[in-house]
Parts: sequence; structure tokens; C-alpha cells
Amino acid sequence: MDTRLTRALSLRLPVLSAPMAFAAGGALAAAVSRAGGLGLIGGGYGDDTWLAEQFTQAGDARVGVGFITWALRKSPHLLTESLRRKPAAVMLSFGDPRPFADEIRASGARLICQCQDLGHVMDAVEVGADVIVAQGAEAGGHGRTRGTLSLVPEVADHLAAHAPDTPLVAAGGIADGRGLAASILLGADGVMLGTRLWASTEALVAPAHHAAILETPGDGTLRTEVADIARQIAWPPGFTARIRQNAFTDRWHGHEAALRAAVATEGPKYRQAFAAGDAQNTGVWFGEAAGLIDAIEPAGQIVARITAEARALLARPV
Amino acid sequence: MDTRLTRALSLRLPVLSAPMAFAAGGALAAAVSRAGGLGLIGGGYGDDTWLAEQFTQAGDARVGVGFITWALRKSPHLLTESLRRKPAAVMLSFGDPRPFADEIRASGARLICQCQDLGHVMDAVEVGADVIVAQGAEAGGHGRTRGTLSLVPEVADHLAAHAPDTPLVAAGGIADGRGLAASILLGADGVMLGTRLWASTEALVAPAHHAAILETPGDGTLRTEVADIARQIAWPPGFTARIRQNAFTDRWHGHEAALRAAVATEGPKYRQAFAAGDAQNTGVWFGEAAGLIDAIEPAGQIVARITAEARALLARPV
Repeated sequence: MDTRLTRALSLRLPVLSAPMAFAAGGALAAAVSRAGGLGLIGGGYGDDTWLAEQFTQAGDARVGVGFITWALRKSPHLLTESLRRKPAAVMLSFGDPRPFADEIRASGARLICQCQDLGHVMDAVEVGADVIVAQGAEAGGHGRTRGTLSLVPEVADHLAAHAPDTPLVAAGGIADGRGLAASILLGADGVMLGTRLWASTEALVAPAHHAAILETPGDGTLRTEVADIARQIAWPPGFTARIRQNAFTDRWHGHEAALRAAVATEGPKYRQAFAAGDAQNTGVWFGEAAGLIDAIEPAGQIVARITAEARALLARPV
Repeated sequence: MDTRLTRALSLRLPVLSAPMAFAAGGALAAAVSRAGGLGLIGGGYGDDTWLAEQFTQAGDARVGVGFITWALRKSPHLLTESLRRKPAAVMLSFGDPRPFADEIRASGARLICQCQDLGHVMDAVEVGADVIVAQGAEAGGHGRTRGTLSLVPEVADHLAAHAPDTPLVAAGGIADGRGLAASILLGADGVMLGTRLWASTEALVAPAHHAAILETPGDGTLRTEVADIARQIAWPPGFTARIRQNAFTDRWHGHEAALRAAVATEGPKYRQAFAAGDAQNTGVWFGEAAGLIDAIEPAGQIVARITAEARALLARPV
């Protein structure tokens, strides 16, 4: 599948893996890259030891890395250290890319900017992003409110007018060949997969969390602030996280002030449950594409199937 | 464009117009039907005089009608009177279709059920809906939280397993041929257009409201309860309305309790501003597809262009 994205990033398939904090380690990124896409290690909230280990896990695979932009401002050395590993690309999401763009480009890595609305896209165009990801609210984890189906063509129109050579990637709610094929017709040059690859054997996800996604329909997630309140991670205003509806969200969503007041005890409970792989008393991080997923499979197999399905759909006379 | 939807409803084009309360009158419905789709008059909240007038306005065009299901329970005679007009189809949305399904089918009209999540789809399958609409959160007006891009294929899979002959229509965020073509590849048999036809010359929309959509990007709307609080319309839990961000939403969104306390004065102000065509101090009812719309045009021209664009996209080698 040859698109502007595959040409810009020298890929065989127009598929990127989302740099999901904690879940997207080196093994997942390497598997996606070996399948023909580009895997991105999740730079997360600033744990250098973990990040170094994941680059090592990726071995000789050509991978990239993604950062939470506002968190990177607190630990900018993480970017400098990552660039020594010669990633093929660096993705910035959730914040102003300006402070980091020059350093990324000077290293030879491609700059990918993930955007949740048109305002973000304007910032990304201004810093000369090599690839722009338009992420809709269906996505698991952090994001904003725009839906993928109308955001992607609107961003495509904006890029056609203001940065016509910049490839566009659709993200949020895409888990099969239908989503990839639809994204291409909406004006994207490829897709970023999060939830679908969270449900892969290589993702760093607890067994009970993997079991949870298989039994959860797309209706079974919500966007909420309660995971960040419990973890005491101060996300900027306007971002919420999509996680599974479970005992934790039933208890606290809509009772945010009470959770803030109880965070001295509830915070450690959240973190212990997460570390223990409990799927009820902590955040379980996946999106609405859960309703399209019925098996935990090797990432390379997922990427190959989705692109084959999309190729067949796009070739079919309708 | 021949699909299971065009065959089920005897149409030339797989396009339905949304029965938008107040905006979707007989002229709009007739224009969409004459263009080859099926236009639906908006049954709204129970004004018999208005509804009778709109059927008259539609003249001899073959149109349908749509109702807000929970509101119809308070004025069931509206359905009985509408069925005397021999609508081609009746759409029920936002509530349990069971109390009305038999009366609709006995009249010879096709039953269309609009669904916002999988739970609703199961109800619609149970009553034997002739057509199911999967409406995503991008849509203007009332809805829920699922995004169109993942909802449509998930509903398609459910129907394939449980009601394989039932055509599926995608709604929410669709305003051009890219959206129609993408919907087909996602597993739908056609689309329902709301916001795009709200921005048509035939829609019953004030000039300043039409001017507002042309200057609003897709980021400029929000889902909120404030319009219903001001109008004192008690929507069931779980539904919010997507409207334009404006002076009214800036003032009250996030301050719902204060609006409830002030409704004796704020309610009349909302209604007067709406009646006067003021675009700042009342609800302005459109969705995220606003960012894809740059002209108010005749509905027939919109339907013709969107289907021609989709046909070209689906035929193009990718």
C-alpha cells in the first residue's frame, strides 16, 4: 500500500502504532515496524530507565518514540537521550511542539505531531511537522472531543490549503480494514492504531486487562478525569482520558471532588491495583474500538490483516 | 448508487435527511426526496398544526417523518395523524420504539430506528426495524457519546449476526462525498445528513444562524444540557445536545444549576432570541460537520454533489 505516508517515512504499510504510555514498549514497536509499519515506543511521563530498556528491547528494528509534550517539558533530557538512539521519528502530542521541533529535526528524525482539533493542527503546520495525526475522541487514553469522521476531512482540507505536502494520519476508533479504508477515503494517508495494538501479545498489558477488552463492547468506555485525579497527574485543561467503565469509574466518575479529597488513600489504591493487574479498581486504558476486537493477537498479524482487508475494500467495485 | 438502503426504501440515492425539530419542514424533505433520497419531516415535540402544515408543504413528494420517541409518548395522536398522510417511512429516535412499531408497520410505512449505541440497536432489532441508523456523537442536536467511525462497523457486525437483511445508515459528522464513501466502506448502506442539510436554502433556519455555520469550524460546537434546561424540556438521562459555542453556552455551560435557578427569566429570553433569529443568545443547532460546510445551497444540489463525489471516490483506484 503506497501512500504519501509510506513515502514520507519509508514504510511498506501506512500504519503507525500509538506510543501508549506503559503499554507500548520496544517489543510492540519492533513488531509493528517489522510488519511494515512504524512502531512508536511510548515515552510516557518521564521514566528514563524504562525508556532506555524499551529501546534496547526494540533491538535493531527501525522504530520511533512518542512523548506527551507537556510532560516532556519537565524532563527534556528524555528527548535528548532518545535521539541518541536514532529513532526514525518522534511524535509529540498534547501540548505546544515548538520547544522541541528544532532538536528533533536536527537529529535527522521525522517530526510527527498528533492533533485533537484544528487549533493544534495550526501549531503543527507552523513548526513544519513532517506528518500530522488527527486523533478523534473515540481513541483510548487522552484526547479531546472531536470525532474522527469529521475531524479527518476537515484537517485534510486545512493541510491542502496550508501544507499540501504533509501526510495526514487518522487515529481514534480504527481497528480493522474498514477503518483504514474509510480513513483513506476521508483524506488520510494512513492510520495510527492504539486500542487495536494494546490488544496484542507484545503490548505491556496485564492479562486481566486483556481479558477485559475482549468482553467489552464499544459502549463500555467513557472519557473521564478520574484516572488522572487518582494518579495525581495534572493534565492541562481540556484533555480527558478514555478508559473502560469499571468499578473504579462507577465509584468516582461524577464525584471528582470527593476523589480529590480522598486522594491520599485512593491514589495508592489505584496504583497498587494497576501494578497488580486488577481490571476493576484502576484505569483500564482502551477506546471505543474495543467493540471491534475479539482476540489478543501478535501485532504483526494484526497489521498484516488490517492492511489486506483495506486493500480488498478499496479495490472492490461498490 | 444502488445499495441495500435504496432497494429497501425504493430510492435512487442512499441518502436520508434528518428529521431535525423546527428546521426540517416539508420543503426540505420534498427537495431531498425529489433529488433521489428520502426526506424526513421533523415531528419535533408535538405541535400538530406545524406538522400538518409541513406535510402540506411537501406536496406530492414521497416523504417520511421522524419523531422523538419519548416525546411521542406524550402526544401519540401525532403519529396516528401523520400516518393518514401515508409517509413512506417513520423514524423513531431517542427512546423505546416498542409502543409504536405495530401501528407504523400496519400503515404500510417503513420503520426506521435511529440508535446511538449497541443497546439501542438491540431494541431496534427486537421490534423488527426495516432500517437502522447508527448516529455518532459528531451529530448536531441530541445524541450520546459514541463516535461514528467505530459505532458503524460495530453495528454492522451486530446486524450481520442478528438481522442480516436490515440496511444500516451512518449518521453524525457526514457532510460530503468523503463521508458517504467512508460510511459505505465502514459497512453502512447509506447516510443520514443533518447538519449539511440544516445549511440548505430549504431548511427552516434563521439567516443569522445560517451565517453562523459558515464561519464556525468543526471545533466550534459542544455537547451540553443548557439548551434543554433553558427550554425546560426534560430529556431523559444520557442525552445531550450538540449546539454551537456562543454567548449563551459561554454563559451557562458548566453552570447548569445556576441556569436552572434562573430559568423563569432565562427560559423566555432563550425562546425569544430563538424566535428572533439571534445567533448568540439561544441554541444554534448544528454539529461538527460545520467545518466541512462553506455555503448555504439548495438541498437537491447538496445531495447530488455528495453522491457524485462518493461515486468517484469509490471508483478510484487507491
